[in-house]
Amino acid sequence: MSEPEPAGSLPEAAGQEKRLSNGGSPAKSKEDLDLAAVYVSDAQYNRNIFFDTSPQAVRLYLLYNHWVPQVLLYVFILVDLCLAIFEDPAVVPLPVWATMLVELICLSAFTTRLVHYAKVIPRDKFWKDPKNICIIVIVLLSLLDMMIYGALKATDHNAVRWSRVLRPLLLVNVTEGRQLRRAFRSIRNALPQIFLVFLLFIFSVLMFSLMALKLFVKRDLKTTEGEPYFTHYLDIVFDLYVLVTTANSPDVMMPAYNANFFFAIFFFLYILVNTYIFMSVFLAVVYNSYKKYLKEEVRQLVRAKRHKMARAFAVLQERREEGAEPVVTRDCWNQLVRLVQSDISTAHRELLWSVSDDKNQGYIGKLAFVQLADLLNIQVITMKSRPHPLQTLCPALYLSPPSRLLCRVVQHRAFVIAFDLIILVNAVFIGLDEEDPVIGNSEWVFLALYMLEILLKLYAFEPRAFFSRHNFWNWFDTIIVISALIATIVNTAVESSLHYSPREILDIVFVLRVLRLIRVVDSIKRFRTIINTLIRIGPTILTFGQLIVVIYYIFAMVGMELFKGKVRYVESSDPQQTDCGNPLLKDSAFANRNYCKNNFNDVVSSFILLMELTVVNQWHVLSSGFTAVTHKSARLFFVLFHIVVVIIIINIFVAFVLEAFSVEYSVEKGDLQTSLEKKINELELAVAQEQQEENLVDSMETSDNDLGSGQSAKSKPALMFKIASKRYRTVDGLLQRMFEADLSPDDFAAEEDADTPNFSNPIFSSA
Amino acid sequence: MSEPEPAGSLPEAAGQEKRLSNGGSPAKSKEDLDLAAVYVSDAQYNRNIFFDTSPQAVRLYLLYNHWVPQVLLYVFILVDLCLAIFEDPAVVPLPVWATMLVELICLSAFTTRLVHYAKVIPRDKFWKDPKNICIIVIVLLSLLDMMIYGALKATDHNAVRWSRVLRPLLLVNVTEGRQLRRAFRSIRNALPQIFLVFLLFIFSVLMFSLMALKLFVKRDLKTTEGEPYFTHYLDIVFDLYVLVTTANSPDVMMPAYNANFFFAIFFFLYILVNTYIFMSVFLAVVYNSYKKYLKEEVRQLVRAKRHKMARAFAVLQERREEGAEPVVTRDCWNQLVRLVQSDISTAHRELLWSVSDDKNQGYIGKLAFVQLADLLNIQVITMKSRPHPLQTLCPALYLSPPSRLLCRVVQHRAFVIAFDLIILVNAVFIGLDEEDPVIGNSEWVFLALYMLEILLKLYAFEPRAFFSRHNFWNWFDTIIVISALIATIVNTAVESSLHYSPREILDIVFVLRVLRLIRVVDSIKRFRTIINTLIRIGPTILTFGQLIVVIYYIFAMVGMELFKGKVRYVESSDPQQTDCGNPLLKDSAFANRNYCKNNFNDVVSSFILLMELTVVNQWHVLSSGFTAVTHKSARLFFVLFHIVVVIIIINIFVAFVLEAFSVEYSVEKGDLQTSLEKKINELELAVAQEQQEENLVDSMETSDNDLGSGQSAKSKPALMFKIASKRYRTVDGLLQRMFEADLSPDDFAAEEDADTPNFSNPIFSSA
Repeated sequence: MSEPEPAGSLPEAAGQEKRLSNGGSPAKSKEDLDLAAVYVSDAQYNRNIFFDTSPQAVRLYLLYNHWVPQVLLYVFILVDLCLAIFEDPAVVPLPVWATMLVELICLSAFTTRLVHYAKVIPRDKFWKDPKNICIIVIVLLSLLDMMIYGALKATDHNAVRWSRVLRPLLLVNVTEGRQLRRAFRSIRNALPQIFLVFLLFIFSVLMFSLMALKLFVKRDLKTTEGEPYFTHYLDIVFDLYVLVTTANSPDVMMPAYNANFFFAIFFFLYILVNTYIFMSVFLAVVYNSYKKYLKEEVRQLVRAKRHKMARAFAVLQERREEGAEPVVTRDCWNQLVRLVQSDISTAHRELLWSVSDDKNQGYIGKLAFVQLADLLNIQVITMKSRPHPLQTLCPALYLSPPSRLLCRVVQHRAFVIAFDLIILVNAVFIGLDEEDPVIGNSEWVFLALYMLEILLKLYAFEPRAFFSRHNFWNWFDTIIVISALIATIVNTAVESSLHYSPREILDIVFVLRVLRLIRVVDSIKRFRTIINTLIRIGPTILTFGQLIVVIYYIFAMVGMELFKGKVRYVESSDPQQTDCGNPLLKDSAFANRNYCKNNFNDVVSSFILLMELTVVNQWHVLSSGFTAVTHKSARLFFVLFHIVVVIIIINIFVAFVLEAFSVEYSVEKGDLQTSLEKKINELELAVAQEQQEENLVDSMETSDNDLGSGQSAKSKPALMFKIASKRYRTVDGLLQRMFEADLSPDDFAAEEDADTPNFSNPIFSSA
Repeated sequence: MSEPEPAGSLPEAAGQEKRLSNGGSPAKSKEDLDLAAVYVSDAQYNRNIFFDTSPQAVRLYLLYNHWVPQVLLYVFILVDLCLAIFEDPAVVPLPVWATMLVELICLSAFTTRLVHYAKVIPRDKFWKDPKNICIIVIVLLSLLDMMIYGALKATDHNAVRWSRVLRPLLLVNVTEGRQLRRAFRSIRNALPQIFLVFLLFIFSVLMFSLMALKLFVKRDLKTTEGEPYFTHYLDIVFDLYVLVTTANSPDVMMPAYNANFFFAIFFFLYILVNTYIFMSVFLAVVYNSYKKYLKEEVRQLVRAKRHKMARAFAVLQERREEGAEPVVTRDCWNQLVRLVQSDISTAHRELLWSVSDDKNQGYIGKLAFVQLADLLNIQVITMKSRPHPLQTLCPALYLSPPSRLLCRVVQHRAFVIAFDLIILVNAVFIGLDEEDPVIGNSEWVFLALYMLEILLKLYAFEPRAFFSRHNFWNWFDTIIVISALIATIVNTAVESSLHYSPREILDIVFVLRVLRLIRVVDSIKRFRTIINTLIRIGPTILTFGQLIVVIYYIFAMVGMELFKGKVRYVESSDPQQTDCGNPLLKDSAFANRNYCKNNFNDVVSSFILLMELTVVNQWHVLSSGFTAVTHKSARLFFVLFHIVVVIIIINIFVAFVLEAFSVEYSVEKGDLQTSLEKKINELELAVAQEQQEENLVDSMETSDNDLGSGQSAKSKPALMFKIASKRYRTVDGLLQRMFEADLSPDDFAAEEDADTPNFSNPIFSSA
């Protein structure tokens, strides 16, 4: 029935007609259902791969999207990136053949993945995608580099593994890292605007430098170190560039200020124009560009999602009667949902159906069907109102008045407050000296109290509800307390046997003790919006983490080739008198400030140094060290790093946070979620929803919500739903919500108006 | 006819009816016109004073708004603030009686202004306004303080002029500084949110500090200076707070990092959470709050403006026939406009009328009338197409072919490019050593070239057009070149007579030379959007400047009382060996870095020091100096300053820039301006508008626009209009444009629907 079709085209209308003539409700073939399930799943996870629609390709595609190859891929990328630890200059040196062998294995894994991808999508699409070309080029260049390096090493020549800078690009291109690629696209899109502002900014710096040169060159001023002050144009430009980053303020101003009062005005104007105005303008340009393109991207994402759902509908549709609107039957829909999400509970599926088919007709039209992907994305938590296990085991005891009182106490707000107070007292005790035996032993008391709290809660609440997936703070609490207990016991055991406690274990114990205190924040309601937003932007910070790793890796590789071994950390009795293993650094600010360990001698040190450069402060001192041991032009490396990381990446990061908070303060819940909630409420299956939304974390801790506690849930239905809090949305969900308000009216309209034309859309229906 | 009415109420309908029965078009009384003119003028300038409507009060109100008392007021405030220069600790000491006398004069000026204000508005309104109460309290407290101070001084006691911190509040409250008060309101509105985030942030800092204490206290680490590292909790909190500002990075990390690699992770996490995430969240919170309240304020502003215009209409309206809509006649309207803006040209007025009365009926309705305030705010430049004066004087010569060719050349784009190249060459020459006689003399060549350029332009373009008000760059150019010429001549004269050139004159010459180069930026089209936005936000930066002055002044006053004379700048042969006049500072980082001149010994030094603290870098070193000479708790002063200025004020500033750019990238021209433009184009009175908009600066420099050059303007009407570029809008205009897109649909609708109800609005019609 469904012949292998060229990707991007839809089953033709003729095929539909044929199928209809077969009877009222023909069973869909396995292939059709598979294909539809893939479309729905792609829509759900926003995958945008134009796979071949032949059953064989669909099976390959399913394998391609399976989590095992995806995780493996990440592992190989990680291994490939981590090779830098073992390659010269190495943290842990390994022979060249070993690292090369591992790299070869990684490269072949990437090639396999690429071949797999090539089999899934049509050939012409494959070669049109720059991503694929990029991977092929990187793999080929890496092989070439390995051969050259091997040959040179074999003949005892100096060799540079230059292809290592390409490795992080694999992270961008090989993985389905949509977030990361989007971040890169944001940067690329913002670049022309940033470049314009940057030109103006540089012009301003050059003009001020020229003015500084004319003002100070003849004045014979001296810096605090006795060096001539502002005498060479390029040095002035560098000093003033550093002043933009504020790193050498106010030192750079002091000689002039000491000479004359009025020169402070020059520096004031300089900082106003270049630091405050231009840096704000950079942020403004990046933010506007980010907002604009993000909007466009999310709009395309939503459109693609709807299109995929429309295709899934086209595969499964049938007509009840001649000339009627095509529909999808309940039976067919059920099979589809089971295929897409095999772990979905029957109750949850029934709920979704009842939301889609709100008139209870037994079939749904296209509009209702298209919502499926969004419905599946809404996390509905099925809560089985089970009695407490103790109640089943020993009902007489568990339901006795003292036991009920205990449960009531544990569920009371005062219980939470009491433990918050205990946490505060604990904080004070931690701050005190633990040598004191009273303080030392108090730790056991606190540990016992925390354990007691957890046990009491487990007694009062149904354990499976207590440890359900979305109770972040319960999990956090339990893990931290138990880890602290174990670590303290281990520590005491070791101490009593060796009469000495090893620092490493103690460190862990201390960190765990302090971490225990964090929970107090979540008890305060007013912090919720902020904490929610912070938790939500958490995953995206990981995207920026990847971005930073890519940039750092490239700079680290270049930096290691340029500066390795030039600066060394030497343990010395007098840290002030060190020269960092290089006589050129004798008495330099770099050595005097004991910065010797900030070097490019291995990949870990490089990353830490780059982190310090990202923080910006003292970056001119750090760069001065490497300038002293090489050449003044080494400054370019550091200036470039500053421009790329601080002016571009950090601003994109700030733009993201700004936008996330903007959404938090303005957008309400999406329409779809509300309709699902409405249905849940209608069916009286909801856990008190309003309170859930507000107090998800409290839900297991206070008496506001009595689900799971054995004694009062009996009058309620045995099965309940709640919608997972906004708090635990993914970044993608957040981004789509960001623009949902803007998009919905237009896009639904477009979808409805251009219903049929959409299928003959030349972009999608072309072979 | 119009009785003195209680403020806020409108002439009653009964009065209108009576007037109508008098005849079709009764001449309006002088008082009515005055009252209407005041309403229109208030609407035009967005003044929101509920003045009394009696003719006497209106006259007083006109005086109140006159520019002379307003300027005088600013002068008195400036004098009052500048008293700090002469009071102890003084830059220029004056006897106490002199400063006190001046202060008394200032205070009485403020009191006079307040009394004047009290006479203008109804008594109950006066006492309801916290602004007035605030002024009264400040004046009384100042008098009290002066008495106490005088008494204590007379009896040789120590006395503190504590009321000086109140002075800058006068700047906020006495003036009609809407911008400044709005900035303060933005801050106040953002405070609750900021405070919540701040609590979380402080909690995070405290937790990290506790962890640092536990991790490092037993390790016996030493800082580079040999001090114990991270041993006292409060010191750790301070050090880690400083790390948030990045000022002590990476120094604070080095001892731990040198001890063990893994501690870098601690600092990495700390910086990630507190510097990057929390500081971005602060910005996000401030930005969102700023955006939200600004929107609300501007909406109210627009609503108030329309209401005022409606009241003006109610005063002037008459009915053509019974039951018809009330209208305003052309005659009445003309009188009104002449009253509101006495310097308006007849042609401009006719143009505005023809825009309002687009059906040419001789009268306009309410909707058209309400637009008047906005129409008056659109700057229309009346351009009289005059022949060049030389053409009038000597037509044969000026219109001869060589002269025409010269004009053509000057107007050509290549002419601009040629001079841009000359500027670049000049920049190189400036950079070279001016001791070289070739270079020294080249200055004369360049000066001659620039003068030639100006003269040629004056020959080719009509001088009055060339120097019209909106040709910023022409003015800039001419002033700079002529100043440079004068300064160079003076310098040469002084040099040849004294055989020595004084540094001050040379400095001015150098600065002017460099400033000449700036013009090159404006020739490059692609920079226009950015430069336009920068020029537009310029005036508002002045508002932030006032805000900063208010905050600085308060901190300077407190700082001077706390730290005056504790640190002194002493000229010494070896700057490294100074102790800043205080043995406690011997060998401190403060003294070693030669920061002695950064002190609170007079108000100017204080301001410069506070500026350095605003830039943040090294603020911990600066604060350490003052901590060393007083007490550790002095840190609180510096931390407080950081929180107020850097976390709040600077973020508000960045929020403003972000919003300004957001608008620049999204909002098109307002509707009203477009309708005016349409009319101008319709009447064929426009200077090629599109090009004007784009190339306002070029308009006099290139051949794109031939107005003003004698030879081709003859075929055009003798009188032309153009709308002043977006470039020169005021901040208020910008702000209103910011939200015009959001506001217009709602507000026009509300105005139209609730037309009559609006007049009986209980808020406004209550006596």
